[in-house]
Amino acid sequence: MQLNVYLAGQIHDNWREDFRKKAEDKNLPLTFSGPMENHERSDNIGEEILGKQPNSIAKDEAASSFNNLRTQLLMQKSDVVVALFGEQYKQWNTAMDASAALTMQKPLIIIRPKELHHPVKELANKANAVVETPGQALQALAYVFD
Amino acid sequence: MQLNVYLAGQIHDNWREDFRKKAEDKNLPLTFSGPMENHERSDNIGEEILGKQPNSIAKDEAASSFNNLRTQLLMQKSDVVVALFGEQYKQWNTAMDASAALTMQKPLIIIRPKELHHPVKELANKANAVVETPGQALQALAYVFD
Amino acid sequence: MQLNVYLAGQIHDNWREDFRKKAEDKNLPLTFSGPMENHERSDNIGEEILGKQPNSIAKDEAASSFNNLRTQLLMQKSDVVVALFGEQYKQWNTAMDASAALTMQKPLIIIRPKELHHPVKELANKANAVVETPGQALQALAYVFD
Amino acid sequence: MQLNVYLAGQIHDNWREDFRKKAEDKNLPLTFSGPMENHERSDNIGEEILGKQPNSIAKDEAASSFNNLRTQLLMQKSDVVVALFGEQYKQWNTAMDASAALTMQKPLIIIRPKELHHPVKELANKANAVVETPGQALQALAYVFD
Amino acid sequence: MQLNVYLAGQIHDNWREDFRKKAEDKNLPLTFSGPMENHERSDNIGEEILGKQPNSIAKDEAASSFNNLRTQLLMQKSDVVVALFGEQYKQWNTAMDASAALTMQKPLIIIRPKELHHPVKELANKANAVVETPGQALQALAYVFD
Amino acid sequence: MQLNVYLAGQIHDNWREDFRKKAEDKNLPLTFSGPMENHERSDNIGEEILGKQPNSIAKDEAASSFNNLRTQLLMQKSDVVVALFGEQYKQWNTAMDASAALTMQKPLIIIRPKELHHPVKELANKANAVVETPGQALQALAYVFD
Amino acid sequence: MQLNVYLAGQIHDNWREDFRKKAEDKNLPLTFSGPMENHERSDNIGEEILGKQPNSIAKDEAASSFNNLRTQLLMQKSDVVVALFGEQYKQWNTAMDASAALTMQKPLIIIRPKELHHPVKELANKANAVVETPGQALQALAYVFD
Amino acid sequence: MQLNVYLAGQIHDNWREDFRKKAEDKNLPLTFSGPMENHERSDNIGEEILGKQPNSIAKDEAASSFNNLRTQLLMQKSDVVVALFGEQYKQWNTAMDASAALTMQKPLIIIRPKELHHPVKELANKANAVVETPGQALQALAYVFD
Repeated sequence: MQLNVYLAGQIHDNWREDFRKKAEDKNLPLTFSGPMENHERSDNIGEEILGKQPNSIAKDEAASSFNNLRTQLLMQKSDVVVALFGEQYKQWNTAMDASAALTMQKPLIIIRPKELHHPVKELANKANAVVETPGQALQALAYVFD
Repeated sequence: MQLNVYLAGQIHDNWREDFRKKAEDKNLPLTFSGPMENHERSDNIGEEILGKQPNSIAKDEAASSFNNLRTQLLMQKSDVVVALFGEQYKQWNTAMDASAALTMQKPLIIIRPKELHHPVKELANKANAVVETPGQALQALAYVFD
Repeated sequence: MQLNVYLAGQIHDNWREDFRKKAEDKNLPLTFSGPMENHERSDNIGEEILGKQPNSIAKDEAASSFNNLRTQLLMQKSDVVVALFGEQYKQWNTAMDASAALTMQKPLIIIRPKELHHPVKELANKANAVVETPGQALQALAYVFD
Repeated sequence: MQLNVYLAGQIHDNWREDFRKKAEDKNLPLTFSGPMENHERSDNIGEEILGKQPNSIAKDEAASSFNNLRTQLLMQKSDVVVALFGEQYKQWNTAMDASAALTMQKPLIIIRPKELHHPVKELANKANAVVETPGQALQALAYVFD
Repeated sequence: MQLNVYLAGQIHDNWREDFRKKAEDKNLPLTFSGPMENHERSDNIGEEILGKQPNSIAKDEAASSFNNLRTQLLMQKSDVVVALFGEQYKQWNTAMDASAALTMQKPLIIIRPKELHHPVKELANKANAVVETPGQALQALAYVFD
Repeated sequence: MQLNVYLAGQIHDNWREDFRKKAEDKNLPLTFSGPMENHERSDNIGEEILGKQPNSIAKDEAASSFNNLRTQLLMQKSDVVVALFGEQYKQWNTAMDASAALTMQKPLIIIRPKELHHPVKELANKANAVVETPGQALQALAYVFD
Repeated sequence: MQLNVYLAGQIHDNWREDFRKKAEDKNLPLTFSGPMENHERSDNIGEEILGKQPNSIAKDEAASSFNNLRTQLLMQKSDVVVALFGEQYKQWNTAMDASAALTMQKPLIIIRPKELHHPVKELANKANAVVETPGQALQALAYVFD
Repeated sequence: MQLNVYLAGQIHDNWREDFRKKAEDKNLPLTFSGPMENHERSDNIGEEILGKQPNSIAKDEAASSFNNLRTQLLMQKSDVVVALFGEQYKQWNTAMDASAALTMQKPLIIIRPKELHHPVKELANKANAVVETPGQALQALAYVFD
């Protein structure tokens, strides 16, 4: 059995690469997908495809349409979602993806540093499991195959 | 025809009261529900019901369970969701509720100040309508009855 | 038993008013909803709520968001959809609403003049019933109560 | 990861062949399906299978039943739908397929020339992404794999 | 609490009238709906609405479209379905309605004379409850209120 | 706003009567339903309706069909489910009803004495809220209206 | 693309074998499943697994449980259902399977001799396509790949 | 055709190993999954991943979150569920998994010794099939391929 894992959440460090490498080291039958990790490209994809937009709101609107297309497609192909909340930025997309997963009854693991417990408490309460580090999330996925 | 409106989003000012009053002034056939607006009580509801918890994480976990019960019940009874993003706090709950509404195919209006366009752009792109003030959201609801 | 009927389709003559009047004459327990029948207002509703938009595409985008909000809300509250195809205009909205009704398994009656049989044939084949005049659609609804 | 793409929309030029060829040139892991592209055969398929029908309405009814069977089967097997609106004909089928995709929560890209913005505005507002050329739609699909 | 009961099944005797009268005698808070009980009108409703059809197949096709519209509307408004199989006729409609109810997870009571156990066994095995007389079906509904 | 509450769980003491009385004392807009509370009648309902059965397994099979009909009907009409686990008996029905509620995304409150935490832990982890006494469950419902 | 086809309907002649052979001759990428075609074994499967039952009703009840398990499993794995109505027997199972397919929005082709048009008219009106011979049903499936 | 079978139920003897071995002996195209069969590890998995918890309730809560993640993932990947009720322990998890399968319309076989008929009667009445031994459950699965 192969599981597709969607890695939602912050794109400001390389936690996904670590995650994938560790999964490989453990020989886990996991394949991964996730959002565009190049932040700048994610912001510019609307103009990259449709050309120069009249203002920054139109530029954001165009970019978000292609980012949402990507997310919806990849999340629908996934068996489980892992969402990492970090301390920087608003990360409403992470909350949006986590909540969409829950509402679709797709299993969800939330990773959040202990310090973020209070603002993420309602989402955490609904998630299947809540951990503090990517390594623990991987342990949870490994447990499925034991 | 009567519409039930769930007013998701920030609980740090009295925008809901204004909203309800204006709806009444216009004689719109709307009934409203929303989260507990007393922030302190919302944080303490777990201990109010279950008694003193061992630590702040357990206290948060207990509170969030009753807040989520309330939200799920009221959102399932609603016909349309209005979600207001403000400039303070992380407001992951607002994003969670907005995304749950979208995934359930429940109509969603997002209110956000123009300045927040960038961080909320993916949710905004998925919402039925995006406005900048509660007054405009009410106009959108009034339009349904015209 | 009361039935809510959504009257989708062209807004270029007053067929809905006729329909409602005839239903009343027959004392049928029907309530009606439908799109904004004032075509100009339907095209301008985006600017009416959000203010002047930079160009005609932005104006259309804004208007369509409020029209879609209205349609989704009213169609979800309805028990049955009646969709009238006329000979003028492209009327892709009519096809969009009819198809949404079918996919949601909401009963659908299509009204189309015989001349339009060929272009509407795939939608007609999927509809519960196809008639040629609003009067026949009303007969079909009356039959439910006999 | 392989994606199945349903190419809905007009069948009056060879845009699908172009699309498939470009996808191959880019080595994208896409497989394609779509409606019968031979317009005449699509109109005659009812009589091809069931034999001569009594009149043109019966002929259309028979043809549409087999065309709908094909579309429903292929759309249910697809991961994403691309719908092209052209300037000729009524193309209610294109609107029907696009709306069915949206209601099933299947990701949708609409291709329409700028000139058609006004009549397609409500569908466009609901689509995940709207572009003006098949090449841009392919860029959007390629972005999912980057 | 009021329950809407759809009385599916044979229309060749007046079992529905008996059923309704007994429910009234017991003061049960039930409202009833069902198919057109006038068999002839049910067969002619297509021509009654659309006018004379070219042949008996077209006449049947037209009639069935209005009968199906009626059934779908009334079954979707109902809380529970009671389906009576009698010894005469093929009654594929009864099996169709019973199976649709089951697939929609709508509670289903089947009434069948003991003699029919063998041909109805697969449907019976899926129904919530199987009884032999309308009186027993009414007892089952009364039990819900005790 | 009125909420329908299904009171699942043990039928071996009169906790439901207490619950209803306290809700009335608090003037909460709640209506209640639940399983047959007369244990003996619940075991005999099959024979009460269908007559003497050949053996105890057939008697149980008949009774369970009418009990399940009742439960499915009442749970589908309810807005929220409260399930009480007691220390006696196996109570697989309580677990069945609680799990059905969760899978239907119907809000669920579990009441269990602290001593039962271990055997009920997986269900408890999925419930919206877990409390120890009926009084606390009522507080949770009251909170929805504050 | 491979399609799984469930061949519902009568088991009193070898139409399925013909169907499979013709599909193979045409090199169509179809795999087939269907009910137990050995009528006697289908009637006895309950006793084959559970041992001698006390009476013929219990024997039927046991058999139908295993037949329904088989049908539900195979229909859920299928992409399209073909249902053949023959002139003999009541064939309520065929109507049950066809209706279940329709309610699950699984594409359905009905095969029925012209003589059966009247009793099968409501199901036929809901099916995607209606043909008179297995060969025509196969043509309809072949058309999906053209 | 390959079927994924989830083996729910008690983990206090090695019935799953027997089951898998017998399926292999019969060359049935079945793959199996199920809960963690090492009872101690299942109870400790929360602390294994998250570290020492403050008390036994927190330990149970943590363990159940990872056990539920595992169960939800594997049940969603399965085509059919087999649930074995034994005479020891409360086994509310078995009832929870069986009921979740039923509500998701996933086929369910219940194995229970005859002595347990009374307490499991409501679940048994809803299951597709009920047998007394694992060997009979395997016969039922083998029948699907005959």
